[in-house]
Amino acid sequence: MSIRVQKTFEALFELEEIRGIFRDSLPTGLSAEEEAAFRQRIGNLKAIVADLEAGTGTPKVTKIAGTLDVRSREEQYINIHPIQAAGRLTTEARKAIISYGDGYSTCDACRKPFRLDKISKPGIAEFHADLAKWLNMDHARVVPGARRGFQAVTGTLVNKGDSVIVSALAHYTEFLSVENAGGVIKEVPLNAKNIVTGEATAQKIEEVKTETGKLPVLVMIDHFDYQFANEHEIREIGKVAHQYDIPFLYNGAYTVGVQPVDGKKIGADFVVGSGHKSMASVAPSGVLATTKEWAPKALRTTAIVGDLTKRKFGIKEVELLGCTLMGGTLLSMIASFPAVKERVLHWDEQVKRSNYFIDRLLKISGSRVLSEYPRRHTLTKVDTTGSFDTVAKTHKRRGFYFSDELSSRGIVGEFAGATRTWKLNTYGLSEKQVHYLADAFTEIAEKFELPVTK
Amino acid sequence: MSIRVQKTFEALFELEEIRGIFRDSLPTGLSAEEEAAFRQRIGNLKAIVADLEAGTGTPKVTKIAGTLDVRSREEQYINIHPIQAAGRLTTEARKAIISYGDGYSTCDACRKPFRLDKISKPGIAEFHADLAKWLNMDHARVVPGARRGFQAVTGTLVNKGDSVIVSALAHYTEFLSVENAGGVIKEVPLNAKNIVTGEATAQKIEEVKTETGKLPVLVMIDHFDYQFANEHEIREIGKVAHQYDIPFLYNGAYTVGVQPVDGKKIGADFVVGSGHKSMASVAPSGVLATTKEWAPKALRTTAIVGDLTKRKFGIKEVELLGCTLMGGTLLSMIASFPAVKERVLHWDEQVKRSNYFIDRLLKISGSRVLSEYPRRHTLTKVDTTGSFDTVAKTHKRRGFYFSDELSSRGIVGEFAGATRTWKLNTYGLSEKQVHYLADAFTEIAEKFELPVTK
Repeated sequence: MSIRVQKTFEALFELEEIRGIFRDSLPTGLSAEEEAAFRQRIGNLKAIVADLEAGTGTPKVTKIAGTLDVRSREEQYINIHPIQAAGRLTTEARKAIISYGDGYSTCDACRKPFRLDKISKPGIAEFHADLAKWLNMDHARVVPGARRGFQAVTGTLVNKGDSVIVSALAHYTEFLSVENAGGVIKEVPLNAKNIVTGEATAQKIEEVKTETGKLPVLVMIDHFDYQFANEHEIREIGKVAHQYDIPFLYNGAYTVGVQPVDGKKIGADFVVGSGHKSMASVAPSGVLATTKEWAPKALRTTAIVGDLTKRKFGIKEVELLGCTLMGGTLLSMIASFPAVKERVLHWDEQVKRSNYFIDRLLKISGSRVLSEYPRRHTLTKVDTTGSFDTVAKTHKRRGFYFSDELSSRGIVGEFAGATRTWKLNTYGLSEKQVHYLADAFTEIAEKFELPVTK
Repeated sequence: MSIRVQKTFEALFELEEIRGIFRDSLPTGLSAEEEAAFRQRIGNLKAIVADLEAGTGTPKVTKIAGTLDVRSREEQYINIHPIQAAGRLTTEARKAIISYGDGYSTCDACRKPFRLDKISKPGIAEFHADLAKWLNMDHARVVPGARRGFQAVTGTLVNKGDSVIVSALAHYTEFLSVENAGGVIKEVPLNAKNIVTGEATAQKIEEVKTETGKLPVLVMIDHFDYQFANEHEIREIGKVAHQYDIPFLYNGAYTVGVQPVDGKKIGADFVVGSGHKSMASVAPSGVLATTKEWAPKALRTTAIVGDLTKRKFGIKEVELLGCTLMGGTLLSMIASFPAVKERVLHWDEQVKRSNYFIDRLLKISGSRVLSEYPRRHTLTKVDTTGSFDTVAKTHKRRGFYFSDELSSRGIVGEFAGATRTWKLNTYGLSEKQVHYLADAFTEIAEKFELPVTK
């Protein structure tokens, strides 16, 4: 770790030690002993800041809680990890979790009717309203990850043996949410370009109807899938679902938070997004949005009554099990939200950089892109069997030579050792970072004498 | 906010701005422009640290992301909030979320078989093994809150119409987890001392059997309940459940993380705990532990297959929907764990302080304790109708006078405005803090001329 980054963490940690002194003190102020400890810590802090400024010194803190390495991946490297790119916290989110990390930190001013999305201080209620509006849906709730959004919907709609339409590229969490509800998966085939079309969806619905005698109870399709990040015919699929009167869940795990999403325009009955994947938030977090037609079902409130005490629990929502993200996860979503709303407006720039990188990669002879091309997303599946893998075949480090070369250039997030088909994500890289990234790939190719088109 | 606490936050936030500069830079180092921004930020930081040391200056940062107040409740006050006390982060946990806050931060070195609890760097696999051992159970998994642990168990065991035994003081999330699975709640009555006994549980099981012709499918009981934090006959209840061959879920939301819990000794088939309530962790987090007998059911792996692609998803667990806490939440649990393991060994001191406070409260004439007494827990329901509420009756601020008096003494976490029956939690207070707390109550009583026994 660079000494500056190291000292930045040490300064942060020293300040947390100082916070600890305040936490252990009386409201009346520090005791003589605490004051001495405070002075000592301030002395440490000043020395760390001096080192930080000068870029001097040696690492003093290398572990958290005795075992955890300090994670400086985002400070030290360009990270092209397929699922980490858009979940990196914004600076404001990092401040929010410093301030709101403690357990039930959302509950300071929780009043009747005692539900997370009704809390007005901090502005959780307002955030929920903004979130729904931003997605152009009627209601929004936060959930512990997109998967818990799928679960709430399958839990509502799917009974034992019911069919659910998903894509042949559906994520495993969609499978599991259907399995959990006792449903049966029915996959829509891809066309020759690895795209799920409206037509294929209609055909699959017909097949299910013929085969089972019943219509599927839900169509759940990813706008961009996790394998290729190809764009599927989401509006046509929405239309088809509605022609059959089947509710449509739009899986926006790879869109909500990085590009504009208009739920009504898509014809979505449910929009699901991921906080830690695409909304610059602490995991697990996500969003489930729905329409006023579906809210009474998917967001139904508890009806169960204690047989003895006759207790009821008012407006707690059954599928959400009441409150969901009652602490730092939610506060990180709220703190990132202004930046997230802004960044989706600049999605075109991100796509442009994605294409810039892929174009440069394709100049390295033998490289291929397995995702649709030109790219419409920043996540891409590439095939370097004909380029970087040819080196791996004879290199003593095998495919790991490639990881070594990347990391020596400050690039991480590739699947270590993989030189055939693998995925990368350029999301969030600036112009200069994406140029640096492309140059690094060219350099590695040239180093190993792979032909590069100029 | 005291200027020192204010400046501590400002220094932390300035360091996050500095981190932001590193994040936006190239791996080769800062550009001239970034270097200038860095110098500027270091200048700011030094000024803040000087103010922090001297206790001077004025607040410069009062909002995060433009809208969120800086939360300094734990630095400024003694917090007796019923559910927040044991969820406050340890200093190491605060360091961990600084370092590991970013979205999927656990996934840097995720390798086959791609499951959270198998990751060895950071030591997530080891933590899971330690957690199981610490609870004296065979397997442990992390979950997004205790409620998601209940849900995994009801999802496994409860079919439509099945009866589940809970206590007449069961938490609403237990109700909802049963409702979610289509089950029926059957409450065990309390004895005259508001305790759930083994005998009453046996009797309730018999009643359900007679009434429905079937045995309940699950007994789910809180060791200490959320209303009174009374200790229930958990070992006897476990024994009774086993006599009927009914699986027993031990709800340790108020025990796991604050007092020693031995799952096997209790006879628990499932132990559920809460990270944000009792394990000094970021919400939502928790633990579900089970035995080797029940693991194949509750932790069953996916069996669903894509009808078209024949895809399967290996060892992903259905009830957990695969990975659960893939970021800062889990890292906060891991970072707090050494301190948590240590603190449970000193639970007796916490109970002693709880009793010290309650004894002092009872000296204020007219005050009562509604929980069992002497206390066996730090959470207590009190009744001050005969003491502090008599002042509220004629005070122009009504019950809020009491909140005003507490907060002017640096105490928060009471239910604002409540002066009749309310709950407080002394967990985590040091000897001097609990004395301060008791003295403050006495002072308020004396100020309003309520008789106080010496």
